[in-house]
Amino acid sequence: MAILGAGMIGEVHRRAALLAGAEIVGVMASTPERSAAVATAWGVEQAYGSIDDVLASDVEIAHICTPNSSHVPYATALMESGKHVLCEKPLGVGLADARHAAEVAERTGMVNTMPFAYRFHPMVRELRARVQSAEFGAVNLMHGSYLQDWLLNPRATSWRVDPAAGGPSRAFGDIGSHWCDLVEWVTGDRIAELVSTTSITVKQRPAATAASFSAVASDAPLIDVTTEDSALIMFRTAKDVAGSAVISQLSAGRKNRLWIEVDGMHQSAVFDQEQPERLWIGEDTASHLLVRDPNQGSAEQRRLATLPAGHAQGYAQCFEAYVADSYAAVDAYQGRGEVPDGLPTFTDGARAAAICDAMLRSAVSRTWVTVEG
Amino acid sequence: MAILGAGMIGEVHRRAALLAGAEIVGVMASTPERSAAVATAWGVEQAYGSIDDVLASDVEIAHICTPNSSHVPYATALMESGKHVLCEKPLGVGLADARHAAEVAERTGMVNTMPFAYRFHPMVRELRARVQSAEFGAVNLMHGSYLQDWLLNPRATSWRVDPAAGGPSRAFGDIGSHWCDLVEWVTGDRIAELVSTTSITVKQRPAATAASFSAVASDAPLIDVTTEDSALIMFRTAKDVAGSAVISQLSAGRKNRLWIEVDGMHQSAVFDQEQPERLWIGEDTASHLLVRDPNQGSAEQRRLATLPAGHAQGYAQCFEAYVADSYAAVDAYQGRGEVPDGLPTFTDGARAAAICDAMLRSAVSRTWVTVEG
Amino acid sequence: MAILGAGMIGEVHRRAALLAGAEIVGVMASTPERSAAVATAWGVEQAYGSIDDVLASDVEIAHICTPNSSHVPYATALMESGKHVLCEKPLGVGLADARHAAEVAERTGMVNTMPFAYRFHPMVRELRARVQSAEFGAVNLMHGSYLQDWLLNPRATSWRVDPAAGGPSRAFGDIGSHWCDLVEWVTGDRIAELVSTTSITVKQRPAATAASFSAVASDAPLIDVTTEDSALIMFRTAKDVAGSAVISQLSAGRKNRLWIEVDGMHQSAVFDQEQPERLWIGEDTASHLLVRDPNQGSAEQRRLATLPAGHAQGYAQCFEAYVADSYAAVDAYQGRGEVPDGLPTFTDGARAAAICDAMLRSAVSRTWVTVEG
Amino acid sequence: MAILGAGMIGEVHRRAALLAGAEIVGVMASTPERSAAVATAWGVEQAYGSIDDVLASDVEIAHICTPNSSHVPYATALMESGKHVLCEKPLGVGLADARHAAEVAERTGMVNTMPFAYRFHPMVRELRARVQSAEFGAVNLMHGSYLQDWLLNPRATSWRVDPAAGGPSRAFGDIGSHWCDLVEWVTGDRIAELVSTTSITVKQRPAATAASFSAVASDAPLIDVTTEDSALIMFRTAKDVAGSAVISQLSAGRKNRLWIEVDGMHQSAVFDQEQPERLWIGEDTASHLLVRDPNQGSAEQRRLATLPAGHAQGYAQCFEAYVADSYAAVDAYQGRGEVPDGLPTFTDGARAAAICDAMLRSAVSRTWVTVEG
Repeated sequence: MAILGAGMIGEVHRRAALLAGAEIVGVMASTPERSAAVATAWGVEQAYGSIDDVLASDVEIAHICTPNSSHVPYATALMESGKHVLCEKPLGVGLADARHAAEVAERTGMVNTMPFAYRFHPMVRELRARVQSAEFGAVNLMHGSYLQDWLLNPRATSWRVDPAAGGPSRAFGDIGSHWCDLVEWVTGDRIAELVSTTSITVKQRPAATAASFSAVASDAPLIDVTTEDSALIMFRTAKDVAGSAVISQLSAGRKNRLWIEVDGMHQSAVFDQEQPERLWIGEDTASHLLVRDPNQGSAEQRRLATLPAGHAQGYAQCFEAYVADSYAAVDAYQGRGEVPDGLPTFTDGARAAAICDAMLRSAVSRTWVTVEG
Repeated sequence: MAILGAGMIGEVHRRAALLAGAEIVGVMASTPERSAAVATAWGVEQAYGSIDDVLASDVEIAHICTPNSSHVPYATALMESGKHVLCEKPLGVGLADARHAAEVAERTGMVNTMPFAYRFHPMVRELRARVQSAEFGAVNLMHGSYLQDWLLNPRATSWRVDPAAGGPSRAFGDIGSHWCDLVEWVTGDRIAELVSTTSITVKQRPAATAASFSAVASDAPLIDVTTEDSALIMFRTAKDVAGSAVISQLSAGRKNRLWIEVDGMHQSAVFDQEQPERLWIGEDTASHLLVRDPNQGSAEQRRLATLPAGHAQGYAQCFEAYVADSYAAVDAYQGRGEVPDGLPTFTDGARAAAICDAMLRSAVSRTWVTVEG
Repeated sequence: MAILGAGMIGEVHRRAALLAGAEIVGVMASTPERSAAVATAWGVEQAYGSIDDVLASDVEIAHICTPNSSHVPYATALMESGKHVLCEKPLGVGLADARHAAEVAERTGMVNTMPFAYRFHPMVRELRARVQSAEFGAVNLMHGSYLQDWLLNPRATSWRVDPAAGGPSRAFGDIGSHWCDLVEWVTGDRIAELVSTTSITVKQRPAATAASFSAVASDAPLIDVTTEDSALIMFRTAKDVAGSAVISQLSAGRKNRLWIEVDGMHQSAVFDQEQPERLWIGEDTASHLLVRDPNQGSAEQRRLATLPAGHAQGYAQCFEAYVADSYAAVDAYQGRGEVPDGLPTFTDGARAAAICDAMLRSAVSRTWVTVEG
Repeated sequence: MAILGAGMIGEVHRRAALLAGAEIVGVMASTPERSAAVATAWGVEQAYGSIDDVLASDVEIAHICTPNSSHVPYATALMESGKHVLCEKPLGVGLADARHAAEVAERTGMVNTMPFAYRFHPMVRELRARVQSAEFGAVNLMHGSYLQDWLLNPRATSWRVDPAAGGPSRAFGDIGSHWCDLVEWVTGDRIAELVSTTSITVKQRPAATAASFSAVASDAPLIDVTTEDSALIMFRTAKDVAGSAVISQLSAGRKNRLWIEVDGMHQSAVFDQEQPERLWIGEDTASHLLVRDPNQGSAEQRRLATLPAGHAQGYAQCFEAYVADSYAAVDAYQGRGEVPDGLPTFTDGARAAAICDAMLRSAVSRTWVTVEG
């Protein structure tokens, strides 16, 4: 397989691929010279000068870790040439882009996956199994938040603040998309219509670009910010269940608090990504804390629980499982085994784009809008 | 003073009044006979046959613990006759009612208070002091939830389900009103406009009436439910800060989870009514747990902290402080001392009615609406 | 009834007695003049000049809230003269004292109770019911700690530091005694032998006396400290179960953390006095959080749960229940009703003294010692 | 490098070595045939038939993942032949064994490390930095527990139950050794003398062997158990600080709860291995929750924090850091870079053996004993 993009996230893919037993045969970086340098550093054979070199090669699988605007052109070209793709989020920078990629994926039938990595926390699998069980009862409410604080400093900035590089939605597009993907996947229900409100609290930030999650402030000249610091949505689902989510990158002390509560007619359940080893289950008579455990719980939780209970797994294992399951899907394509459950695909990427599009429309129109897709 | 209403809540008032050192001279129950019986049981002198008896008496202070529909007629008549009133929530069953009561209170100048009791948790006082301090930074988001599960059982019912007895809004009117009162009081900001969505998940419930918080199901014939099981609001404040609240009485395992997060530009803060002895403060570098402590923190927190740290106070102490502070306000009226800080009055009751009215209007119109009042 | 001692703790007794419906007929303070002043302030009839006045009076019940050294002389004299006593901890300042009081109690048959108040947390009752149930399995280990920080400041002091006033053991005598009482009462087992080690970390403190829990440092001249800041014990019970407790008044951030874990062959259980509304139950498959709830759980938990779930009870309610149950025991003595379950008596006070005596002996001898009593 | 032992733990070493960039050139399994099979499966060149083959090879580094009794013979032979060793815990099955290994390590000067893996949690590094800082104040108490439940089922068994295979101490040797290593390493103080008590609650277990952490019960014939289910120690350190630890494998609901509290004269600190992303710091005025964050805190915490805050690291990352740091020590031996801070060596392994030996002696003699070593 080959990795396109040799930045921090390319390195993350390389590590997970290595653990999955993949052979990395080539790499494409930002320039032919840089490709050659990285190929040497990584000890891989091929250094691709361009996407055409990759398309012409005989690699079967490509990881796309390049800037957002190239995700869809690369992914569609790769699939059209018969290659399987693992493509970083987001699926392009707009709804049309994402739908196009999903259509090509559908038509070509190549394996196409995206790292909605939180689906791979074993306790998210447990949450899904519980919420969809008879003991849980019909869902009557879904709510939560996804809070970070890395942009709290008015002088903090990142390429994600720039709509040309990161897309027209920032907080929602980046992290709200994960929240919506999880709540839909966990409940098996879909957000049908929503109303939103967004805030740009820090009106100007430095123009300089910086890597995500950097806490280092910039001294660059200030420019107007046009992407939201926080976005709130309220929604109703296809099954007419109400829901609410609070998305913000300005919540001091919240590092990556993706928090979901689903309330059923017999039980409630909470998953908090900052404490991913456990699940809270509420009942009228008591509440219960379930811990990740290869010897307990749902089949999917056990499958992804690779360490004994009490020996914490974390984000790295999520990503490793995403890559391993993507490769298992390729194996299944080639006739070996089954496609693993719960792999996020381009269809999910297009769905995220549709919800983001609806959120942006409602923030402008100040009305309830229908999610189209 | 006198107590009007001799049910469970009348008993709660009596207990708090006793601890505040008040002399209870009379009681009015549902009938003259019952008044006489209660007067004997409580060992008080006067048994009032009717509100006219109370108006004609020389009691200075009356606690109104009668059914909701009598709150405003009794309160206004008492104030017009020169008596101070402590009136149970809600301030009548509609916005007009509540405004009328607030106007009479304003005009007569009598002491008028209402048990938005959660304001009297010492750590809510600490929260308020912190949120309004310079160290906190400007508020950029306010969000949270108030969740209970006592109506989860489809056969559970209460007079609160009946709009004629409890008003047109149930979950929001009962508990959402507390959430909004707290967030406005804590931040010093006001909800200017909101959009809401409500759900009646249990379409029919038994007709029988039962005391609030009862978990005992009823076998009475089913009738259609017209008051909401859950209500979600999204709002913007006078200072253009966005906010969100999730209110539900169908969240299994949540007994009385009033949870508020306020996010400022330097710190965030969380108060959880189910763990009222502490406050979470988030900062970029760490988060902090403050505990109630008569030797630490803000002046108001210290004032209401009557037990040493680590010896939990709770809901009873909130109610006791509400009553004691109401009496202190009467003392101030009579020239002794100052009116304590943070006493909820009929103005606050009318405010709660205005927000509830806006919530109901938006749920019908499916549009953003302005809070009038 | 009458209250002996009009300090802070006398006031606490008065408040609980008032709520229990008792009529306070007299008070004895440190001098006849002060007795008269307090009687006026409290509005009670009798101001006792001395214990002899109390003995000669016709009061049926006396609350002993005077300094430690008077507890046993007063209590025994009162019981000998046919009065019931509620006596503050400790039961005198040594083992012989305590045994004498227990013997007089036994002989006279008068009601005799002591405020091991933590027994009255409803969730401690739940803990006891669970631990002694078949589902719990045989206990295999009991451990925990009782940590405070109010003596962390080297200039903090109190009469409790002085062995003449507070007894030869400080941390263990004050708070370790509560831990041992709870663990024995909850498990129904008894500490048979123990080994201990104690530390006096702050070698000198100011000589001045101050009220307990005061955080105000003193400028008085320093004197050598002879009572322990912390005490550790390891023990084996009558049923040969091992246990361990860590007792300290120098643990920063711990205000009143009485924490007990009991491990059974099917379940484990934890009670944390700083979060008294809940109980943690561990099982191999999951752990469970039980909340205080008048509608759930064991009979004794329900009996003491006077507020709905989620409306926190706390330390004040413990003390109120202790006094109310003591009065119910007097009623039972007089032929009305039953003696409530779990009332701590002088037998328990003597037991606490015996364990403390063993702890002190082992700290000196550096050997395992038998608890005598 | 080469891996000796191809079981589950050998696989864990292989994975971490791979991520550290090591080239695995050979493997030795339980038989020559199995060595050949594993070599093929792993794709490595050499399949060693015996330890002599390894000694004769030119590998520079060996990972010893074979049964306990072979640890010391293999390790010493390897070091004597000029090879660096990463040796699994424990360092042999007795104190003499361990001391011998430490002496050979000292004499040969080869790199010698052992996976006291919990030292590599970034927040343990933070704990160490804080505890040894001036702001913390002198340590006055250290206490905690290490609790598991995997042997709660009386029919659960493992080779660890058999003293011939696992050594004379089970719970303490396995997990108590980690607790003691951490507390000594974190505080920089040493346990000087201790008193212990042990319990064998399940008197007989099945004879069959099973992998550790297995929850599957065995139907094999029962044999007497001679290794402890739980061990309690109380100790005093070289600096005369008191301490206490509760070690058990029979605590229901506790999966791997290594919990340490260190109390200083200004601050206290708690690390809980089941929530390894955070640290609790107590002060008189508040307590603080610190989270792992590559942008905050001590140098060593930052160095080991390889993921952004809020993206949980876990046990796998500890092990990876242990192996990477071991390799860095080899690099330093070869003149490249520095030996990383905090690497556990055979000296630490011998220290663990000495404490375990003292624990066993005290359990028999029922006296305080000196830790020799």
